[in-house]
Amino acid sequence: MNETHDPSLTSWIESANSPDTDFPIQNLPFGVFSRKGDTERRVGVAVGDQIIDIGESLSANLWSGKARDVARWCDRPNLNELMQAPRESLSQFRARLSELLAGTPGDDSVINPLPPGALVPMAEAEMFPPADIGDYTDFYASIYHATNVGKLFRPDTPLFPNYKYVPIAYHGRASSIIISGAEVQRPSGQTTASGGGANTPVFGPTQMLDYEAEVGFFVGRGNERGQPIPIDEAENHLFGICLVNDWSARDIQSWEYQPLGPFLSKNFATTISPWVVTWEALQPYRVPAFFRPPGDPQPLPYLASEKDRNEGGIDLNIEVYIRSMLMREGRLRPSRLSLASLADMYWTPAQMLTHHASNGCNLRPGDLFASGTVSGPESGSQGCMLELTRRGAEPIVLPTGEERKFLHDGDEVILRAYLQREGAARIGLGECSGLIVASHRR
Amino acid sequence: MNETHDPSLTSWIESANSPDTDFPIQNLPFGVFSRKGDTERRVGVAVGDQIIDIGESLSANLWSGKARDVARWCDRPNLNELMQAPRESLSQFRARLSELLAGTPGDDSVINPLPPGALVPMAEAEMFPPADIGDYTDFYASIYHATNVGKLFRPDTPLFPNYKYVPIAYHGRASSIIISGAEVQRPSGQTTASGGGANTPVFGPTQMLDYEAEVGFFVGRGNERGQPIPIDEAENHLFGICLVNDWSARDIQSWEYQPLGPFLSKNFATTISPWVVTWEALQPYRVPAFFRPPGDPQPLPYLASEKDRNEGGIDLNIEVYIRSMLMREGRLRPSRLSLASLADMYWTPAQMLTHHASNGCNLRPGDLFASGTVSGPESGSQGCMLELTRRGAEPIVLPTGEERKFLHDGDEVILRAYLQREGAARIGLGECSGLIVASHRR
Repeated sequence: MNETHDPSLTSWIESANSPDTDFPIQNLPFGVFSRKGDTERRVGVAVGDQIIDIGESLSANLWSGKARDVARWCDRPNLNELMQAPRESLSQFRARLSELLAGTPGDDSVINPLPPGALVPMAEAEMFPPADIGDYTDFYASIYHATNVGKLFRPDTPLFPNYKYVPIAYHGRASSIIISGAEVQRPSGQTTASGGGANTPVFGPTQMLDYEAEVGFFVGRGNERGQPIPIDEAENHLFGICLVNDWSARDIQSWEYQPLGPFLSKNFATTISPWVVTWEALQPYRVPAFFRPPGDPQPLPYLASEKDRNEGGIDLNIEVYIRSMLMREGRLRPSRLSLASLADMYWTPAQMLTHHASNGCNLRPGDLFASGTVSGPESGSQGCMLELTRRGAEPIVLPTGEERKFLHDGDEVILRAYLQREGAARIGLGECSGLIVASHRR
Repeated sequence: MNETHDPSLTSWIESANSPDTDFPIQNLPFGVFSRKGDTERRVGVAVGDQIIDIGESLSANLWSGKARDVARWCDRPNLNELMQAPRESLSQFRARLSELLAGTPGDDSVINPLPPGALVPMAEAEMFPPADIGDYTDFYASIYHATNVGKLFRPDTPLFPNYKYVPIAYHGRASSIIISGAEVQRPSGQTTASGGGANTPVFGPTQMLDYEAEVGFFVGRGNERGQPIPIDEAENHLFGICLVNDWSARDIQSWEYQPLGPFLSKNFATTISPWVVTWEALQPYRVPAFFRPPGDPQPLPYLASEKDRNEGGIDLNIEVYIRSMLMREGRLRPSRLSLASLADMYWTPAQMLTHHASNGCNLRPGDLFASGTVSGPESGSQGCMLELTRRGAEPIVLPTGEERKFLHDGDEVILRAYLQREGAARIGLGECSGLIVASHRR
């Protein structure tokens, strides 16, 4: 923790001091936006309900040394170059930006130091994926999710023997990663009445459309092919986090996934939130790694680190909300389906990254990996409908009285996440939302 | 077929007329190269042992109309823009290039029409991946391969019930796709003595390093997210083919793959050949799709097309050669391990592409999908060591007397492929080779 994390810090940007903003001055996440009506993509930093156009700020004499390097890397249409920046440079940039934004609204001695045009209201901006994502990987790091899902398919042996040794993951699709707010069309695919059985499949719109609430990790500095990343260096390769909704068609998945894993059941769309909360901003909220109960194996040496065990976790709270068409028409607020914590994951971000590169696989700046569905041990902490409704056996009832086994057309799913801790500010990740629209193939 | 395919056509470039060149005037594949000692990447066309630098040819007044558009799209560091070109434009370019190169060596009436510097000897060029590959997908389209591999793990039910309905595939890693000739370092990973059993794993260099001989398909024109591609339009989205070696660590694979498929066992390296043979060049070698024996289901309607059934296959012969360090030292020629045909695949390229986009997944120009290991029904047609040696139970003996269960450090694996047919020229794909080097983690 340093002065940029000081919970008593306020900004002359009034909305940054609101108790329910996700973007107080202690956060300062990066994103890519355009001004409405303009096509040019710009790197910005979110503060309250405003965006600082960093490239635009270069015209004033605000930046020097390493902070100026970072500001210049922001003068780009995506974050890829910025993501490679040395930690020390990012830290100096953050300290300087915090200084420029600090103040008390109404205090006449504080003057907005930004040049005209460098402050853009979020309401007048459109957001884009923060990086040109080269490769997208999806982990499976929640033992609660893996157990809950495993039980539905293999009641006697829900977890495979590899689970407690291997941070299980598979490659996902980069082309269909979309930004919060983009519509998601119900996909079609092959399904059978029995799922994995020997029935004859039919092709049509999925009847089991689901969401998965996940956290995404952007790779910062990459590694050369053939060069693994030691566990104690792993976090130096992590730039920041966002929310990920790994939309899933369960009926397509159960028929297609053997023996090579999910494919069309997942790759039609993956929604991410637009603001990337930096690794430095996350530091006040670090917690020990998952506590492995007696009987569980310890991580193999390449995944073991005392530092990671002591503070490798992140106490990020993740909420899932749903709003059906009827709820929108009745002006009802979104209804919360679950609350879970990233601290309950069996594997830490450092373990996931180190495992990913342990065979020499090269990671590139802007690559994204996701945690897998974040589910906890308690009732109400399950991060997808498959778990919440036990594959439709126990439907959810919405405030309108509507039942849901899986998602209907017109449903909107909204992920939110925040970090809070005694002695630290509450910061958030912003929203990750998507609205289901009907299949073209009706 | 058109005049560019005429087997009697010769070129004034003498090496293009050699009976054992892969690149006669009937081929004209595209690739990306640089002149040795120069870093600039250029688009070229292979002819015999020469490369035509198309961008360099623009200075002469050789191109007009749509052919000139294509020539201009070649003035780039990769093929991505060219790959989006309309079929008609590509066809006009090919016809004009064929015209420019046609002739008889020694015939004084034929003059090299290319400007100085547009002809580069292959020996003076370095090759690069032909496209900026956004997403890489690997199919599993050989029923012989799927059956042989399945038998090793599940003797009673080698094929899952989905196999004859679903063109099975998974997403691979784009970052670690490398060009023929690049070294492949033996990867490390978690393995257990029993493979998938409940043993405690150890971390170390793989003891079961394998190759997989596959064919790669480059996507040309893409599709919008949410817009499937009908089977009869599928081939209009295919730009061309190359060879793919999907290096695989079998011990890592068998321990990690459940339930989400292969990950670190595959993503350390995938080697591709540098020359992309265009869809038009392939046309004389088209054959019917796989003949489904009585009892096999017909493809579901979205994958069924009379045209595809009649001529959806490609009679591409694929050979795998090995050369150990001892063989190199003894100046022995590479030894052939297998010969198989792409015509034996259960699914056609069009079916793979249509299936991939059937859920609305968006494909982008330059995306690559591979066929999966190409194996045939005969002995000696198995496209990987796992099959050839039955997971090491029946080692191969090399001409030096050395035994191989899997690959050793110092082994070089070379894939070659060619197309030949009565009334057509013999054209080839060039080489796809890789040399295994020791793990850093000894």
